[in-house]
Amino acid sequence: MSVAKLPSAGFSITVRVSLTADAGAIGRLTTAVGEAGAIVKALDVVSSDHKRVVVDLTCDTSDSAHAERVTDALASLPGITVRKVSDRTFLLHLGGKIEVTPKVSLRNRDELSMAYTPGVARVCSAIAENPDDARRLTIKRNTVAVVTDGSAVLGLGNLGPEAALPVMEGKAALFKKFAGVDAWPVCLDTQDTDEIVEIVAALAPVYGGINLEDIAAPRCFEIEARLRDRLNIPVFHDDQHGTAIVVLAALTNALGVVGKNFGDIRVTVSGAGAAGTAIMNLLLKRGIGDVIACDRPGALYRGMPGLSSAWKDLVERTNRENFSGTLAEAVAGSDVFIGVSAPNLLTGNDIARMATDPIVFALANPDPEIDPREAAEHAAIVATGRSDQPNQINNVLAFPGVFRGMLDAQATGWSDDAALAAADAIAGVVGADKANASFIVPSVFDPHVAPAVAQAVKNVLRPEPVNGDNGNGEAS
Amino acid sequence: MSVAKLPSAGFSITVRVSLTADAGAIGRLTTAVGEAGAIVKALDVVSSDHKRVVVDLTCDTSDSAHAERVTDALASLPGITVRKVSDRTFLLHLGGKIEVTPKVSLRNRDELSMAYTPGVARVCSAIAENPDDARRLTIKRNTVAVVTDGSAVLGLGNLGPEAALPVMEGKAALFKKFAGVDAWPVCLDTQDTDEIVEIVAALAPVYGGINLEDIAAPRCFEIEARLRDRLNIPVFHDDQHGTAIVVLAALTNALGVVGKNFGDIRVTVSGAGAAGTAIMNLLLKRGIGDVIACDRPGALYRGMPGLSSAWKDLVERTNRENFSGTLAEAVAGSDVFIGVSAPNLLTGNDIARMATDPIVFALANPDPEIDPREAAEHAAIVATGRSDQPNQINNVLAFPGVFRGMLDAQATGWSDDAALAAADAIAGVVGADKANASFIVPSVFDPHVAPAVAQAVKNVLRPEPVNGDNGNGEAS
Repeated sequence: MSVAKLPSAGFSITVRVSLTADAGAIGRLTTAVGEAGAIVKALDVVSSDHKRVVVDLTCDTSDSAHAERVTDALASLPGITVRKVSDRTFLLHLGGKIEVTPKVSLRNRDELSMAYTPGVARVCSAIAENPDDARRLTIKRNTVAVVTDGSAVLGLGNLGPEAALPVMEGKAALFKKFAGVDAWPVCLDTQDTDEIVEIVAALAPVYGGINLEDIAAPRCFEIEARLRDRLNIPVFHDDQHGTAIVVLAALTNALGVVGKNFGDIRVTVSGAGAAGTAIMNLLLKRGIGDVIACDRPGALYRGMPGLSSAWKDLVERTNRENFSGTLAEAVAGSDVFIGVSAPNLLTGNDIARMATDPIVFALANPDPEIDPREAAEHAAIVATGRSDQPNQINNVLAFPGVFRGMLDAQATGWSDDAALAAADAIAGVVGADKANASFIVPSVFDPHVAPAVAQAVKNVLRPEPVNGDNGNGEAS
Repeated sequence: MSVAKLPSAGFSITVRVSLTADAGAIGRLTTAVGEAGAIVKALDVVSSDHKRVVVDLTCDTSDSAHAERVTDALASLPGITVRKVSDRTFLLHLGGKIEVTPKVSLRNRDELSMAYTPGVARVCSAIAENPDDARRLTIKRNTVAVVTDGSAVLGLGNLGPEAALPVMEGKAALFKKFAGVDAWPVCLDTQDTDEIVEIVAALAPVYGGINLEDIAAPRCFEIEARLRDRLNIPVFHDDQHGTAIVVLAALTNALGVVGKNFGDIRVTVSGAGAAGTAIMNLLLKRGIGDVIACDRPGALYRGMPGLSSAWKDLVERTNRENFSGTLAEAVAGSDVFIGVSAPNLLTGNDIARMATDPIVFALANPDPEIDPREAAEHAAIVATGRSDQPNQINNVLAFPGVFRGMLDAQATGWSDDAALAAADAIAGVVGADKANASFIVPSVFDPHVAPAVAQAVKNVLRPEPVNGDNGNGEAS
């Protein structure tokens, strides 16, 4: 790819080396790390005597191959022996990243008899009499299923359910960290649409919401639609709607910075899969001037041979002038480019042919549709999915608050209006007065984001009128 | 029922009352509680002035009707106003009893990039290449599904999945408290055997073991058998095997106390459902002299009209002399009675007609097959499922350690030998030297039980040879 990868903690290693105990030894070591392009993050002496020192050297590298080159460089230094190389990311994942913790204490007979038998029987009977009480007396109130079939794991493809689990665990950890939501990974050993629908429907009693994740298109559309019909809790495919919300938030602030309006602009989207389709749907809902969907065959247009049923549906709502041509031809004259597709599809020259003050969101991960630095030579605003560039479009800005709001509303479904409100809330955390070309979305660590999104979503998904119970367990 | 229920924390209430501020007011209040048969557990003054005092009075009652009588008695006292009655058990269940907690910290960009993208991608790829690594790099290593269809919730019957959830949450809390196991409730909105099998098989990638719970017989037998055939993780129906293990443990010590041997005794079991069948199977595996299965139609025998296929199978292995007759007739002359059936089926006279030093396990919950005090007039040893009587037969003695051992062994299945070893381990915590008629099983709070069971189970379910990896995440 054309963007040089920067060293990051995602590829951090700890190397245990034994070296001669002379004054310059550690200097030679850290110099070698720097010359190999890695960044020293920590150096801990494990043991030393008058002859040799053993140190644990932690450094960030840019990828696995780079980590090996760094290790080789250290091993080739005179007087140094590499004893062990630990991959800090793998260490962190050992044994998994989430656990199930009791919220009640179980220290003695009294506590046991309230939390479990015989006391629990009355709680069961109460729910059997009034099933809505499950939202009050069980974990359903705060719990979300993160469901995948492992068919589209990150950008890695169809890795299956076991290999998807680290992502779902990570997502569950983020749910709790950013929004206090209890999320549980459901990695299904089937990729059959009917089976997935039946299984998720059967699992629903425990959950207040369903987050679909990393399920390949077009299967993901049908699964979501059928589950929404069937269940009385919200079903939200994050790869679609989470991405669309954050893109719309970023675009809202970007348009403010360049002084354009949604109704006046043309957007070209590269990638008409799950994310791209959801982005286009939400842009249309917001009143975009025009949007052209592009995929491998170029711009999608009405009458194009070989359109899938999903794409047929899409071209009915997009590409007002029924343009046909390549991606680069569609981008020429567009105000905004949004890529959720593949690396290195565009060049600086393509951006130069866009309308004035072009906005470029090159979101393919880890390698964008265009080198963001090349894009920036011609674009007014550039955003990517990368954490080492300004304007990172990251779903973490949306999904924790979205589900917090759904749960707080005891919502029975999801709506486009809620998605628009969530996007406005994210954009509003930056604010029109503070937005600039390098700051169109808040940091993922900004603590104001999730509460703002939750409140906005809750306001739209008005809570169902709850029964008269005031929630404090009164018996009379 | 014939056993007077004692007040317990399972029926504990907190009553907020306002009373006149004279010296005798609180005395009249607590006296009234005692006269109503409840037990004062706490008294907290909420506010007071020179005219009135507001107190929160917490007391244990014996059931819901009793709680109402106690409240009514307080309300009828002169100068006292009952403002609010809170049910402490319901309060404890509000919002559920478990939560999902991150084990990794996510405070900054570096931690996020290791736990989630981009770092997590390498972990996913590693598992895709070597699926066994899921046991090392995900929660699978320590995680159990607690699966129910809500068809046989406690003794309450077919309440459905929502109403079963409080039990499954409680079980998950106990798993963590007693054995450090992460357990997650799976309450299925289907009672179709085929669907349950397909769903649990599809969920399996996330789990190292499956605990089936509160699923009605005979469906539970087929579900367990088919899942065991299909999955490479242990499947354990706790209502069957957990109960059988604890019964066998208790019987081992009971026989020691009365000086009898398994091979010489006859046992009559009342209740040939899930628990009873599993108990009889395990007794046969242990080499019991003879066992007679009884159910509603009396003793089950070969050639009996109308036997189900499960019962046909059972009578081939039991009832050596093909006895036919009532439960009471079968109990006459037996050395041991084990009831897992219904309240008040036997009287003291029935026990008087048993063999010398009879052993009576009357385990129907909450009301046993015979009043344990009546049984004790004739029996050498009496056990029940109740916490307010000696010798409580409680599954909590088995399942936490059983699953701890399975997970530690990375077991691919379950075996009768493991069940026998678990029973021996529980019996051994009491020990032949300390066992007596009132102490044949350890306390559920004895911290030695779960580790002993886990070690015994692990020894039997020998660990699969693990790959060469030393588990510390080394990259080279």
